[in-house]
Amino acid sequence: MDEFECTPTLNTGLRGVEVASTRISQVDAKAGKLIYRGYLVAELAKNASFEEVVFLLLYERLPKAKELEDFSGRLKVKRALSPSLVAFLKSVQPTVNPMDVLQAGVALLVQGDPGAGDNTMASTLVSAEHLVAGIASLIAAWDRIRKGLEPVVPDDSLGHAENFLYMLTGRKPEPETTRFFDTALVLHAEHSFNASTFTARQVASTRAHIYAAVSAAIGSLSGELHGGANVRVMEMLKAIKAVENIDAYVNDALDAGKKIMGLGHAVYQVDDPRAAILAPMSKRMGEMVNQTLWYDISTRLEQTAKQRFKEKKGSDIFVNVDFYSASLFYAMGIPMDLFTPVFALARVPGWAAHVIEEKFATSAPAPALYRPGAAYVGDYCGPDECSFVDLDQR
Amino acid sequence: MDEFECTPTLNTGLRGVEVASTRISQVDAKAGKLIYRGYLVAELAKNASFEEVVFLLLYERLPKAKELEDFSGRLKVKRALSPSLVAFLKSVQPTVNPMDVLQAGVALLVQGDPGAGDNTMASTLVSAEHLVAGIASLIAAWDRIRKGLEPVVPDDSLGHAENFLYMLTGRKPEPETTRFFDTALVLHAEHSFNASTFTARQVASTRAHIYAAVSAAIGSLSGELHGGANVRVMEMLKAIKAVENIDAYVNDALDAGKKIMGLGHAVYQVDDPRAAILAPMSKRMGEMVNQTLWYDISTRLEQTAKQRFKEKKGSDIFVNVDFYSASLFYAMGIPMDLFTPVFALARVPGWAAHVIEEKFATSAPAPALYRPGAAYVGDYCGPDECSFVDLDQR
Repeated sequence: MDEFECTPTLNTGLRGVEVASTRISQVDAKAGKLIYRGYLVAELAKNASFEEVVFLLLYERLPKAKELEDFSGRLKVKRALSPSLVAFLKSVQPTVNPMDVLQAGVALLVQGDPGAGDNTMASTLVSAEHLVAGIASLIAAWDRIRKGLEPVVPDDSLGHAENFLYMLTGRKPEPETTRFFDTALVLHAEHSFNASTFTARQVASTRAHIYAAVSAAIGSLSGELHGGANVRVMEMLKAIKAVENIDAYVNDALDAGKKIMGLGHAVYQVDDPRAAILAPMSKRMGEMVNQTLWYDISTRLEQTAKQRFKEKKGSDIFVNVDFYSASLFYAMGIPMDLFTPVFALARVPGWAAHVIEEKFATSAPAPALYRPGAAYVGDYCGPDECSFVDLDQR
Repeated sequence: MDEFECTPTLNTGLRGVEVASTRISQVDAKAGKLIYRGYLVAELAKNASFEEVVFLLLYERLPKAKELEDFSGRLKVKRALSPSLVAFLKSVQPTVNPMDVLQAGVALLVQGDPGAGDNTMASTLVSAEHLVAGIASLIAAWDRIRKGLEPVVPDDSLGHAENFLYMLTGRKPEPETTRFFDTALVLHAEHSFNASTFTARQVASTRAHIYAAVSAAIGSLSGELHGGANVRVMEMLKAIKAVENIDAYVNDALDAGKKIMGLGHAVYQVDDPRAAILAPMSKRMGEMVNQTLWYDISTRLEQTAKQRFKEKKGSDIFVNVDFYSASLFYAMGIPMDLFTPVFALARVPGWAAHVIEEKFATSAPAPALYRPGAAYVGDYCGPDECSFVDLDQR
């Protein structure tokens, strides 16, 4: 169309192309800074609970004490899974990947929300709270049900992070484990226009409700190039097995031109600021459970890979958020195929904030339905259209 | 990033911006031509069955007679819903919107496909056939189950369109109804980078499997600005009630600056070529069931709205695919809240072709993970980052 003077390079995934304006977060790729609604994520990780950060993302400011209490209370009320959702989980074959179950389950959370179709900002904020609470219960209940156990009833005396771990294992976690898990949720809560968030915004741009948008985002997150990467990091650590195998692993990977999981990011040109916070938690968590191997491999792998990459390619490579979250989650006893669901659990407030911005932003100009163009390069019948040939003549 | 010289205008939904190259279809917005894999859709609608068009979209050419027979046979084998999927449908509350059920159900179709996680082109083609067959059974079974009826067992002697109508109603449709429905499926099978297809491609770009991508696309299609529009057209026709109310309706809508549903399109600058094929089918279908009112309102509404729009705005407005599909589906006895699911049923091969192109295109350059940028305009603490204030100090 005539109003556009330019077009991004084809097939490059819109890398570096600004498609929208946002007030939600900023990724400063060169400085290695991540900012949620004005606050450095490092500050939030140190000082704020996940519930405070969810409030910040949804309501654009940190809550006062009474607001936080009310907000946490509303989340608690929304934790229980309906009998319909439990019956749904029980209908699924136990071998199905939890991300597939979650994509379906989040779409079905709409059942408990009579205002879902209202398409107002107020109703969407209610739905967002329903999603934040509900996804935790879905993940935990699915892990129980697939093992033949009954879901654990949520405990209203516990915060979001602690209650999730409790519903998952049936035991209340150590306070330090709770704090680390809460911090990990804060660190994963939002990251601007990554693939899954862009998916959520796109779905919301059609005026679909937030459950449809968040379910779609979960589908996007499941890919191994996105949220699935934390599982791949852990698989890699297990394949390396011991610190003495690192050199050979790195050399083989670099020689074969293979990616080392957890290194490299679509955006950051320095180390991911979240990795520096996750690494010491992974170390301490490993010590707490007498299993320091995976942290040890991780930290030595980081050093070796960075050094060899520099020698071989002449450029730097950086750790991303998945590099240390893998060993942290593993030391916490979270099953490997729940790493990506836990990422989703943490990211729901980010997705929700983007859905709300996409649908209800008052800043001009309002976003529009995503409907890009594409260059047709089909050459099936040369420059002309193909002539239809009847079935019996083909 | 430095390699891009330009950026599209923010918040315009990438309208008119070419993001990728494709061999699947071409929308010639000025000439009003729609081409699937080299063939004009008008030619395909006249000559080809839906199964032939699915084969064309997936395998890049029309099938020979034996290939079509084998292909149709494979689809028939994949029609039956597993006990798990039937149990899932029975777990859902009967009032849930069928698009929500479908978004979940399509994600769960992965259960019947052991190769879903293989991430090869061959396994994805098998999954695509599973999706084409399975979505029809899901929609029909859900409509039965929500009414308290048992699903109808698919009939292997029937083609895809006829079998769907049979599973929906329990009765074999008239041959002319089958032909019209089959043609409607052909017309809705593919339409380049519309919102839901872009969603499917985006999800696939993370290397998520095709069930995750198609489920996400269904979420996108559910929005009233996209696939949900055909329902809105029918609601509008019912609100108008009689031909004599059209003038007032159009005048009121234009005076209030309100959209008339089914008029206007993000891409076409002429009448949608599919509307010209759907209109006579809607007329004939209305005659067959002695219910010509909705077609009559539609055709008179088209004339009146176009004329008034021209007078008032000085420019033309055009009918889109939803304008006549609404009255056609209604005359066929399809429940209104299944109009968008029927759109999804038809669009699965298009989405599948795009997922396959996104993941396995051999044409250089291969597509990359979608990861656009965004302009951060958060001004929460002026140009600086906000300082964290403790909860009791806020």
